[in-house]
Amino acid sequence: MTTLTVDLGARSYPIHIGSGLLDRSELLRERLSGQSLMIVTNTTVAPLYLERVQAAFEGLRQAAVVLPDGEEYKTLDTVNRIYTALLEQRFDRRTTLLALGGGVIGDMTGFAAATYQRGVAFVQVPTTLLSQVDSSVGGKTGVNHPLGKNMIGAFHQPRSVIIDIDTLNTLPDRELSAGLAEVIKYGLLGDAPFFDWLEEHIDALRARDPAALEYAIARSCQDKAEVVAADETEQGRRALLNLGHTFGHAIETGLGYGKWLHGEAVGCGMVMAADLSRRMGWIGDEDVQRIRNLIERAGLPTTPPPELDPARMRELMSVDKKVVEGQLRLVLLREIGHAVVTGEFPRNLLDETLEHAA
Amino acid sequence: MTTLTVDLGARSYPIHIGSGLLDRSELLRERLSGQSLMIVTNTTVAPLYLERVQAAFEGLRQAAVVLPDGEEYKTLDTVNRIYTALLEQRFDRRTTLLALGGGVIGDMTGFAAATYQRGVAFVQVPTTLLSQVDSSVGGKTGVNHPLGKNMIGAFHQPRSVIIDIDTLNTLPDRELSAGLAEVIKYGLLGDAPFFDWLEEHIDALRARDPAALEYAIARSCQDKAEVVAADETEQGRRALLNLGHTFGHAIETGLGYGKWLHGEAVGCGMVMAADLSRRMGWIGDEDVQRIRNLIERAGLPTTPPPELDPARMRELMSVDKKVVEGQLRLVLLREIGHAVVTGEFPRNLLDETLEHAA
Repeated sequence: MTTLTVDLGARSYPIHIGSGLLDRSELLRERLSGQSLMIVTNTTVAPLYLERVQAAFEGLRQAAVVLPDGEEYKTLDTVNRIYTALLEQRFDRRTTLLALGGGVIGDMTGFAAATYQRGVAFVQVPTTLLSQVDSSVGGKTGVNHPLGKNMIGAFHQPRSVIIDIDTLNTLPDRELSAGLAEVIKYGLLGDAPFFDWLEEHIDALRARDPAALEYAIARSCQDKAEVVAADETEQGRRALLNLGHTFGHAIETGLGYGKWLHGEAVGCGMVMAADLSRRMGWIGDEDVQRIRNLIERAGLPTTPPPELDPARMRELMSVDKKVVEGQLRLVLLREIGHAVVTGEFPRNLLDETLEHAA
Repeated sequence: MTTLTVDLGARSYPIHIGSGLLDRSELLRERLSGQSLMIVTNTTVAPLYLERVQAAFEGLRQAAVVLPDGEEYKTLDTVNRIYTALLEQRFDRRTTLLALGGGVIGDMTGFAAATYQRGVAFVQVPTTLLSQVDSSVGGKTGVNHPLGKNMIGAFHQPRSVIIDIDTLNTLPDRELSAGLAEVIKYGLLGDAPFFDWLEEHIDALRARDPAALEYAIARSCQDKAEVVAADETEQGRRALLNLGHTFGHAIETGLGYGKWLHGEAVGCGMVMAADLSRRMGWIGDEDVQRIRNLIERAGLPTTPPPELDPARMRELMSVDKKVVEGQLRLVLLREIGHAVVTGEFPRNLLDETLEHAA
């Protein structure tokens, strides 16, 4: 087992990564607040893992709410079901919420925890690669609005994150690939040696080699934890984590949530960000080729869906949260392993990227 | 004009209290974030004051959302209308929200600001006595849930609070009285000289004497600001501000939101808290009589509505946020001007209070 710490002063918390952690009652219980626990999970994960997690909390006052599975349910209405379950059980402000599932469950549970009785504790037990390396670290919580993804939310740090890599054995191939998009992102944005490592181990990761997975997850969490610790509320450096996301969100919103997986959209978005970086003269053809190859070998799309033409993509990108005072800002690459946030790119080059990608 | 400061380190903010402040463009603008502004108000307040406030922000990119008026609209669904307006206007995270109205508008606008794009700035312009002395100070934001009042929310501090006492000239008598409940509360819980002052000036306040109003509002805000600064997230002393509220919330929930005004329920709740304090031997008959008299002279009810019998009241009180680990905690009086939070009261004395009040 590997243990990392996200360093946020009084709100610092541990991330435990390893095999068989769902049965480690002492790990799951170590950061609980109070004596009651609400497990939030979904219809896909509940049959696989809910009983084991409940067993780890035997003796505690506990309940579970099982939500429908899918990004299309990441809404205020679904979060309201969590509030209702908490109120029906009369769970008070010293309750702990436990998110058992992927990023959607983590984001909604975190938002419910941030806002139930103005804030209660929560613990993340992510069961998808994407949520293990991304959404369970950093305290971003929230839901979608019909007019934009993740537009409603709060910053709320978990008390602990417990990553049992055995849960990846039940993850569909497509979702494993989607998670690899975020893993590759850490290499691209600030960790060139990790990018090199990924080029060597991408096949082992897709084959679910446990040692490779534990290493890749720990390194991704470490990379992300460092960025988050330096900039908790995304005033500066944390924005680099959005590499590929402005393009990706446009794809997800344009298609309707749930058609493409988030990681698929981000994978394609990173290729587009690389393409724009090349057009600006920042990186070379061969860099773009390396990036495209790795994303393709991870099993991810590298071109946007044909139904989203460049004009529609441009429109969708203009409502992104990264728009500041009407100015679109993108994360682009100075080189592999070095990303920057910039609003200074010629509009016609973005247009070229959108047109050539289509 | 009186200016106070709520001392919260980097999040400190000013409260300005005086006449004619709605026309003081420089005051309204002094703490804006960015270059866009969304005014949130309701159908009652908009015809009276919206144009004047808009005029003060001339030249800025601004829009307004006008919500239905009433506690029954203090819901997630109504907050969602604010999100939709913001997204339709493409207002980004550097937008400022301005709450123009009473406590319901302030609570919902604050919650929308706390959660829109994970947090944007907001300014409070309270137009009722209740919101001026209570909900605009301290950063509590939120909405009701069908199973409980204020169960969904966040702590989010305003950038500034601008209290124009002239707006009280359009306030119905019943709402003025409701606001006086919270004013009396500050005297009762920690400021005995202010309680004495109120006994002398309650008629002037009901007659809307401007000097009396400015003094009472400033002193109430000062008393509250001191409590909030000492305990921002309600771990301890801040809970004293809930004097009368556990009884009051039970009344509001039991009747259905909107039947009694919040301040009416709190006024009655304070009499009940005083009665229980007397049964515990903490205060005397004559103290209860002084409290009851002042609340009655303020134009407030002193007994709960007949349709809520003691058994129903007890049930409603058990889901209050002040319940910690199954233990009901109440704010009771050691003397006039000295309140304490306690879970240590004999159940039968609470029953007696509920039975005798009915």
